[in-house]
Amino acid sequence: AQMSLEQGYEARREFDVRYRLLMRMTLDPILFVSVGRGRIKDLNDPAAALLGTDRESLIGAPFAEQFRDRRQEEFIEGLVNAALSETSSGVEVSARRSRKKIDIVPRILRAAGERIPICRIRATDDPERQLDELG
Amino acid sequence: AQMSLEQGYEARREFDVRYRLLMRMTLDPILFVSVGRGRIKDLNDPAAALLGTDRESLIGAPFAEQFRDRRQEEFIEGLVNAALSETSSGVEVSARRSRKKIDIVPRILRAAGERIPICRIRATDDPERQLDELG
Repeated sequence: AQMSLEQGYEARREFDVRYRLLMRMTLDPILFVSVGRGRIKDLNDPAAALLGTDRESLIGAPFAEQFRDRRQEEFIEGLVNAALSETSSGVEVSARRSRKKIDIVPRILRAAGERIPICRIRATDDPERQLDELG
Repeated sequence: AQMSLEQGYEARREFDVRYRLLMRMTLDPILFVSVGRGRIKDLNDPAAALLGTDRESLIGAPFAEQFRDRRQEEFIEGLVNAALSETSSGVEVSARRSRKKIDIVPRILRAAGERIPICRIRATDDPERQLDELG
């Protein structure tokens, strides 16, 4: 969306930059997925590392294809249901490239008429980090 | 900044929501600080917990006052210098409320004519988590 007001541009830019800074600073592996198309909208480096490749190759890629035996529609539907049910347990998957067992914790919020799902992922065999749920 | 275009409003809202979602999902303790006033602009729950109180009491509070023996101007200047020098080592402080030893890793980016510092903090006596630096 193009903006014609300088003010709008600057406000947008501040959130944009804050958002990008936050993505760069977080060590938790985090992804944004588009519900409609089931593609990875954005992710941070730790998330890319867990999936076994780099960030650039994953932006725009179908999320389901990163895992074994997952069909796009059912997979995204499963994530949406898990997010809406707000259970603390995540969705367990097996990463295709890194072959790691991964636990996906999805959350969804609505913005600008679109549902934006955000997922925190984590290797289930990672002993270093306990997954303590927030709110 | 008020916006008069619906489009600008929606674009702003998407980044706003993505930003807030990200702040809610991250388990890493993260804070945004305003350079000019040295106050906490925003932080997540894990950061508030590390400082020994809740998020609401800390938004807008002077950052330096959260630590022992830290004077506002010198403290913020120290953070800015650490961020600009891009050393991997952080700034060590002692939290006033929680009495925890904390390591602050600051980064700075410029947005909308303003420098926006973001800090990741961490209890230095936390054995569970290694602080591996990103980029």
